[in-house]
Amino acid sequence: MKLYNLKAGMNPRRVRIFMAEKGLHCETVDIDMEAGENRRPEFLAKNPLGTLPVLELDDGTIIAESMAICRYLEELHPEPALLGRTALERAQVEMWNRRMELEILVPTTSVFLHTHPFWDGRITQYGDYGQSCRDHLLKRFTWLDGEIAGRDFIAGSSYSVADITVQCALIVAKACKLPVPPELGNLTAWFARVSSRPTARA
Amino acid sequence: MKLYNLKAGMNPRRVRIFMAEKGLHCETVDIDMEAGENRRPEFLAKNPLGTLPVLELDDGTIIAESMAICRYLEELHPEPALLGRTALERAQVEMWNRRMELEILVPTTSVFLHTHPFWDGRITQYGDYGQSCRDHLLKRFTWLDGEIAGRDFIAGSSYSVADITVQCALIVAKACKLPVPPELGNLTAWFARVSSRPTARA
Repeated sequence: MKLYNLKAGMNPRRVRIFMAEKGLHCETVDIDMEAGENRRPEFLAKNPLGTLPVLELDDGTIIAESMAICRYLEELHPEPALLGRTALERAQVEMWNRRMELEILVPTTSVFLHTHPFWDGRITQYGDYGQSCRDHLLKRFTWLDGEIAGRDFIAGSSYSVADITVQCALIVAKACKLPVPPELGNLTAWFARVSSRPTARA
Repeated sequence: MKLYNLKAGMNPRRVRIFMAEKGLHCETVDIDMEAGENRRPEFLAKNPLGTLPVLELDDGTIIAESMAICRYLEELHPEPALLGRTALERAQVEMWNRRMELEILVPTTSVFLHTHPFWDGRITQYGDYGQSCRDHLLKRFTWLDGEIAGRDFIAGSSYSVADITVQCALIVAKACKLPVPPELGNLTAWFARVSSRPTARA
């Protein structure tokens, strides 16, 4: 098994933390996106979209998309469960992970693409739209702060993939000068809690 | 079991088709979004984000987010399998469904929000950004047309949730005057194929 990885990438980090939580190790191949390695024919033959991470199985089978990789690894290595233990738990973890993707991770990506200097000159940045994403994301931080009042983790009492999604998004939001406002006490405490896990820097 | 539904909604339609493929029926409650019913306290108590669809179990437990609902129903009613039959198949259906969400459904939503007259005056529309999403979506149609050459369905030889995702997105794209260009023969034939299923109008 081989993981094609982007060291600073938000999505590759999701899979690395997921694997670290399960104590899994595999060969890792770092792809240099700035040098265009993900756009070379040999990589596009593995994943025509050029995105990372990509998991390659020993027989050459490819699994792209972070959550597809996580789901596959969860089935092979169920402990500790990061996607829920029963049909209902799995549905609720999926619900929370989806909410975290749609309400936090997707707007964070838009903020990064449309307002971060890294992308200036690399893509067309729509600044007004990017600013609206910043405003939206701040509102979502406030909403999430209220939602998690009284519980330790995003989807309930156990650490799950929904936590991983948000902690990886918040690293990017911070790099876009949009840290969690300190007055949002629940979210601030949650972020400190998950960031102190030994796997957080995987 | 009760499904809170929005008749013309892209995501509620995904769940309705998923249920129809499995021969499942349940009480359906239509929510009138234009009249603001999804923003009323009684609905927000069920789903604080005000999004649809929402599944309410007999004990009052709520499952929001289309894919969380589909995953729950698949576990309770495995046949016909719409999320794959083995760990690897499930990973590959998830990969294709994610690709279809990220590359087709999400840009379609942006095209709808930022270029369709329905949203004029209801939200701030960023026209330049919306136009860039139209251009992007057309490129993705071309990419997908190439990917599905030689196969009947998006994720392989069986109809799956990845097909449902795209067929629902294409209905919205068409309403935004962005139909699949007829010269994209594979995608055009695929859309005719899935649209002729008895469940397509669920």
